[in-house]
Amino acid sequence: MSKLLSGIAASGGIVIAPVHLLGDAKGPVEQQITTDVNHEVERLHDSFRITADELTQISRQASANYGNEVQETLQTQLALINDWQFQATLSRRVVSEKITAASAVQAYLDEQAGLTPSRAQQARLTSLQDVGHRLLGHLLDRTTMPRLDHRAVIVAHQVSPSLVASFDPRLVAGVVTDQGGATAHSALLVAELGLPAVVGTHSATTQAAEDMVAIVDGEHGKLILQPTPQEIDHYQRLAAQYQRKQQELGALATATTVTADGSRYQIAANVTLPAELKQLAQAGAEGIGLYRSEYLFLDPARPVTEEDQVAAYKAALLAMPKHRVVIRVQDLGADKQPGANLVTDRGIRRLLAEPVILRTQLRALLRASVYGQLAIMFPFVATIDEFQRALEILDQEKRKLVAAGHPVADQLEVGMMIETPAAVLMADQFAKYADFFSIGSNDLVQYLFATERTTSPLNHHYSVLNPAVLRAIRQVIQAAHAEGKWISLCGEMATVKLAQPLLLAMGLDEFSVPLAAILPLRQLIRSLSVRQLQPLVKKALALENDDEVAELVEAWLAKQAPQAGLKQPD
Amino acid sequence: MSKLLSGIAASGGIVIAPVHLLGDAKGPVEQQITTDVNHEVERLHDSFRITADELTQISRQASANYGNEVQETLQTQLALINDWQFQATLSRRVVSEKITAASAVQAYLDEQAGLTPSRAQQARLTSLQDVGHRLLGHLLDRTTMPRLDHRAVIVAHQVSPSLVASFDPRLVAGVVTDQGGATAHSALLVAELGLPAVVGTHSATTQAAEDMVAIVDGEHGKLILQPTPQEIDHYQRLAAQYQRKQQELGALATATTVTADGSRYQIAANVTLPAELKQLAQAGAEGIGLYRSEYLFLDPARPVTEEDQVAAYKAALLAMPKHRVVIRVQDLGADKQPGANLVTDRGIRRLLAEPVILRTQLRALLRASVYGQLAIMFPFVATIDEFQRALEILDQEKRKLVAAGHPVADQLEVGMMIETPAAVLMADQFAKYADFFSIGSNDLVQYLFATERTTSPLNHHYSVLNPAVLRAIRQVIQAAHAEGKWISLCGEMATVKLAQPLLLAMGLDEFSVPLAAILPLRQLIRSLSVRQLQPLVKKALALENDDEVAELVEAWLAKQAPQAGLKQPD
Repeated sequence: MSKLLSGIAASGGIVIAPVHLLGDAKGPVEQQITTDVNHEVERLHDSFRITADELTQISRQASANYGNEVQETLQTQLALINDWQFQATLSRRVVSEKITAASAVQAYLDEQAGLTPSRAQQARLTSLQDVGHRLLGHLLDRTTMPRLDHRAVIVAHQVSPSLVASFDPRLVAGVVTDQGGATAHSALLVAELGLPAVVGTHSATTQAAEDMVAIVDGEHGKLILQPTPQEIDHYQRLAAQYQRKQQELGALATATTVTADGSRYQIAANVTLPAELKQLAQAGAEGIGLYRSEYLFLDPARPVTEEDQVAAYKAALLAMPKHRVVIRVQDLGADKQPGANLVTDRGIRRLLAEPVILRTQLRALLRASVYGQLAIMFPFVATIDEFQRALEILDQEKRKLVAAGHPVADQLEVGMMIETPAAVLMADQFAKYADFFSIGSNDLVQYLFATERTTSPLNHHYSVLNPAVLRAIRQVIQAAHAEGKWISLCGEMATVKLAQPLLLAMGLDEFSVPLAAILPLRQLIRSLSVRQLQPLVKKALALENDDEVAELVEAWLAKQAPQAGLKQPD
Repeated sequence: MSKLLSGIAASGGIVIAPVHLLGDAKGPVEQQITTDVNHEVERLHDSFRITADELTQISRQASANYGNEVQETLQTQLALINDWQFQATLSRRVVSEKITAASAVQAYLDEQAGLTPSRAQQARLTSLQDVGHRLLGHLLDRTTMPRLDHRAVIVAHQVSPSLVASFDPRLVAGVVTDQGGATAHSALLVAELGLPAVVGTHSATTQAAEDMVAIVDGEHGKLILQPTPQEIDHYQRLAAQYQRKQQELGALATATTVTADGSRYQIAANVTLPAELKQLAQAGAEGIGLYRSEYLFLDPARPVTEEDQVAAYKAALLAMPKHRVVIRVQDLGADKQPGANLVTDRGIRRLLAEPVILRTQLRALLRASVYGQLAIMFPFVATIDEFQRALEILDQEKRKLVAAGHPVADQLEVGMMIETPAAVLMADQFAKYADFFSIGSNDLVQYLFATERTTSPLNHHYSVLNPAVLRAIRQVIQAAHAEGKWISLCGEMATVKLAQPLLLAMGLDEFSVPLAAILPLRQLIRSLSVRQLQPLVKKALALENDDEVAELVEAWLAKQAPQAGLKQPD
């Protein structure tokens, strides 16, 4: 008899392969002596940070679906993970007993479990165990990811972004986790790798066993363990069907992005991990619209050098030799630590305060610039002064490199993200100095509605389809074009089906999207006529809320482009 | 020999009066039994919240002036104050030992001081003592503010907003504190009362003694204890001079707010405390432009009833019988708890989620509406839907009241704050539904530049004079006027000398400012010609940063209105 587990569909596709169970985070950890105490302390801090991020993410999602009780539990857990005394206790233990971070966490959990708690302490103890297991999960995942020698479905309690970053997409066939949601950072990363994934199954790790045959249906969020021959047959046919659909799209990989009435657009890729570089051509990318350099700086234990960076940027440029590659200077500080009392600045304003980091990255970018069509992009710009100072520093580094005999590309575009409302209002001025814009719709929406870090159950109207957002975007596009500059959008909005026709009609030059979104978008664009879309935009901008805009575009798509509407995945 | 202490000038004016020392927060607290344990626990929590606010405020100011060490100390203190275990320990103590909050804090501090700390613990212990004294300060201030029987200068370690709220401005001659900055909430409140104040003297409480004669020079941030006869004479002359200047301004209290070329404007008052109502006429207010109802809800231990609210709003309306009184529905949730892991929503979006609170306040407002020219204002609106839902609820309550036989004013204006960038972008649509706008420039600037909760040393360019802010404001003013609606601005920007001519020329109908700012602004407006200002606005909107705008307006004022430029306080 097969076993069916339902979870959340996190990434499409169907795969049949043997299970590889990843480090059992729930099993006890043996006391383990370490010779590198500093490394273990750093790993401990790292796991605290990742866990804090996760809990914040979960509590954001939970606010929409669950009541106060769940929120309270999550708040207790967040308070705990952000309690420096708790961190300090564990760090001290690692140092004084010379044990691994995982051992210290385990020993602490064991001790606490041995106490007889008062009723008031009971809730804290439960939270402590939960948080402790999350910490162990992260600490152990990292150590237990082995080199696979055959294709396998990874089954884990949960996966951390850094773990996903270490996946070899040729050997990882799919991913299934007990915990997590479809929009968790690690789930998004798995989706970007194009792997089928089912998350939030609750019990996959306890139900599955090593090398057990499994079917992962990432379209419908299903995991089937020890499938019957009939099930294998059925899913093989479904997989083939999915494959055919993909092949249909695949034929568009080398097609141009042109509307039915002949307007030319550009679809570039968002690249988050180096593994994605190999898939650019197959995914149909016309360049890289957003190369997120943050992954280089993820591990505080291993500082990245200028040489490391040159090598990474060179690889990105060589992956798209005939296209433009936009590399974003790291958005330092964007990963806010939840509960941190002092939120420090991020993006360009943070980098200007830490010029050594900025200058090193700019030098590496300039040195790599000779290998392709590099465009450098600065994040989170809010004032003209900030952008001008960044340009100055770039110019200084360029002169220094040239003086030292390093070759640097003659033609080098320098642009900026538009993600603060102030940048929208001043877009006409920015367009005089920037070679291009890229709209960061995720952050922009947050700041337009002032919803940063809120958990409102009402916030479903603060969406990319709200006319306030559309107006901001139109203003920026017009400002760019008035100065003859090109403009991209690299946020999630570029993948929102009901937003795409509007962006197209407003004149956005480039859509920068995850690999898997390129071909469906190209299919849609090729089916639409920009001229016919113009009245739609005018109407949308005069509406009052996102629901009205959604209805308008839906009705239009159903009438004008029923085929595109159907072919496009939701 | 007199003693001179220098501090920060927090509020103008000069006064000579005997000292009244306020509750010695540094002295030991006797163990004190309480019969109302719940009240003490609430007071404890309240003192934690206020202390957390203060520390955040201090750390913001500190970031500009001090190095990393100070920031680290402050971060340690903030972590401590936000540590729920620390709060829980003290609460449990209050409950189990039935002692006052102050006693519990003191006992805990004593115990900790008795321990021999390791070097690693030393920093924490120092922070603990500091935080503990802050807590005691708040807990004791509240209990030790006596009824004064003569005018006196209040000298205190620090004053809390709730303490200032309890001042009788007829008996408090001035305020001097050891700690605090000019922009701390409590300092702003003192300034709104028009009392001379010097803060941040470090040692006023240790240098001054009860009934010692003191000179407070709030213009220059000076405290002179036991002044010589010569000093008394000198400062009496300075006080007289200040008085004359004030009288000159005072003559304008009944003058109209009209420019030199005959354009009529309105200067209304921001009212934060009921004590200010008596001073409206003398201060020259043409109505109340912003009545902050939050003070009613400050004390969680004493929930305010609908009747309490009716009485409060009636008092405000009767204080300005011939003018409009704009009462803002409470901006619930605007006081963010620093370090809170989940920042909840604020303003209208929070109120819509807690309709009982909203409905009670609206009922009280409607019942009070018969006593004057009431205008109701909703805070923190970001979408049309939110405003429409608020209007619906208001309408429902109105019908219910009328059905129950309560008289309600026929004419009742209903407006909204413009403080989110989304509201700026949609101002033309909002203007169809709102009877008026009031721009909340403080929050708007934060969200435009996405600087909420940041501590950037670079943030001096994120100012009200940045062209991005001016453009947003012009857009909103034009949208309001296109629908024939009036528009006010009630943030600090309305008191910024270099912003005032620009706001005037952009067509702002009303400035809503603290009492002390009304007459200087009227003097300025009467000296200016709006027609001459038009080219200035056009130039300012095309500039790139706030420095350029400041230079432009400064040069213009020096040339066009040298007198106004000089008479206006900085």
